[in-house]
Amino acid sequence: MNMEKYLQERKAMVDKALHRLIPPEDAYPQMIHESIRYSIFAGGKRLRPILTLAAGELYNQDLSRYLPAACALEMIHCYSLIHDDLPAMDDDDYRRGKLTNHKVYGEAMAVLAGDALLTLAFEVLSRDSLNDSGAIIKVMQEIAAASGTAGMIGGQVVDLLSEGNPVSADTLNYIHSRKTGALIRASVRVGGILGGAGEEELKVLTRYGQCLGLAFQIIDDILDIEGEESKLGKKTGMDIQKRKATYPGIHGIEPAREKVKELYHASLSSLEIFEARGEALKILAGFLVNRDY
Amino acid sequence: MNMEKYLQERKAMVDKALHRLIPPEDAYPQMIHESIRYSIFAGGKRLRPILTLAAGELYNQDLSRYLPAACALEMIHCYSLIHDDLPAMDDDDYRRGKLTNHKVYGEAMAVLAGDALLTLAFEVLSRDSLNDSGAIIKVMQEIAAASGTAGMIGGQVVDLLSEGNPVSADTLNYIHSRKTGALIRASVRVGGILGGAGEEELKVLTRYGQCLGLAFQIIDDILDIEGEESKLGKKTGMDIQKRKATYPGIHGIEPAREKVKELYHASLSSLEIFEARGEALKILAGFLVNRDY
Repeated sequence: MNMEKYLQERKAMVDKALHRLIPPEDAYPQMIHESIRYSIFAGGKRLRPILTLAAGELYNQDLSRYLPAACALEMIHCYSLIHDDLPAMDDDDYRRGKLTNHKVYGEAMAVLAGDALLTLAFEVLSRDSLNDSGAIIKVMQEIAAASGTAGMIGGQVVDLLSEGNPVSADTLNYIHSRKTGALIRASVRVGGILGGAGEEELKVLTRYGQCLGLAFQIIDDILDIEGEESKLGKKTGMDIQKRKATYPGIHGIEPAREKVKELYHASLSSLEIFEARGEALKILAGFLVNRDY
Repeated sequence: MNMEKYLQERKAMVDKALHRLIPPEDAYPQMIHESIRYSIFAGGKRLRPILTLAAGELYNQDLSRYLPAACALEMIHCYSLIHDDLPAMDDDDYRRGKLTNHKVYGEAMAVLAGDALLTLAFEVLSRDSLNDSGAIIKVMQEIAAASGTAGMIGGQVVDLLSEGNPVSADTLNYIHSRKTGALIRASVRVGGILGGAGEEELKVLTRYGQCLGLAFQIIDDILDIEGEESKLGKKTGMDIQKRKATYPGIHGIEPAREKVKELYHASLSSLEIFEARGEALKILAGFLVNRDY
């Protein structure tokens, strides 16, 4: 299995679906659609939708049934980045080597573009006629819970309130498991739910998503210390400059690397129940923990 | 029928449901829940949920089946106010006589409180087990479309882009019908959809909601010119100061009053098909067009 090719194909599939699901740039009022498209097509890795597709594929090779939900997850991820970059939040000028949304379209439009992406995510889910309504409702509950104050928003709140203050290992764990972890975990689960995973299988997928989500965030923290700016498309060293709580900051960089390895192995530990079909999830995990961008 | 008492009872019912549906203030992380509750319990009239209940009541007296959706509409309305008040948008310090959300909790928390309310609206809808899943999915489609770039957000975008520029009657109509009109129209329709309205009845309800939504906005514009600050809980004369496009600004204040009357009568025109059951909707319309706050 050629992972680079696999990822490229999946990314192309997701991008095509996003183009179809998001109003065109010339739809009135144009500026909001330009602003939305500017950020969603700014070169994201499409990790979340790819995880949904990979989990869904365990059950059904017809990926079209997973694409609307996969795209909704990417829209929510993208809205959170646009809002996180605002001057009142992280105040970032660049993301993935491009100016952030508010630097191009202004703060008001950036707030609205984020709002619109969040709204569109649920519109796309509620219009998803490829799946039965019971499954789609479960998926909406899953995504809403992972994105709300008990999930992603909660993590962002604690992260903001912690900035510049000493942070305990427990608080850091809370931030990581919610701010990025919750949506990554949900992305895997959504594929399982739509595919019709049984209870035991959903547990395995949940564990996989949870381990990968935390590993993903720790790798982000490590790359901010020793990554290459040209590969990352952003300035490194920002966590220290902004006095952000990070895993290597609290535990040290070697323990951080060890933790990633531990999480990687934990993520694989129960995938055997899927036998050969679980291969893609395994390779995907390996790829993610070895990324340098 | 005592309209004051009716409205008070409905408002109390909606407030009680909101208290139940929104996480308590002491739920971790507390500050976001405080911030959400500060704005949602800041004395709103609950117009949108009351319209949902009134339309739903045409079909079924058990209002509990309409309350989750009614509250979701109020959450979306409230999120839009929090974001509209931000310095990058309308930059308002007061709303309903109280400091705006960002003046109390800071801009970052206000952005997140709005995001959280929008997310919670769809979480509440997707957890609404009182209704069959087909109806709830239609309601989600309705609410998402009314709130997105073809509805409320679209209206806000055009309003923002028009500030300080001369605005045509057509553009003003676009702004009004989307920025406030779309969600008010949807509020009425949602009651009908959940109640099981037939196609013809839903058309009548749509017309009712559409007329009321536009009338509501024109009245807002009139009150900004000649309303009493103490009753409104906000400064008047702000539209002129901010060079906002308004109906009386373009057409004059007398034509604005005439338009409200015309819309009022149009809103009632087909309600006969509901016979005596339509009484509450009629009185509600009369109350709304005569409001001075």
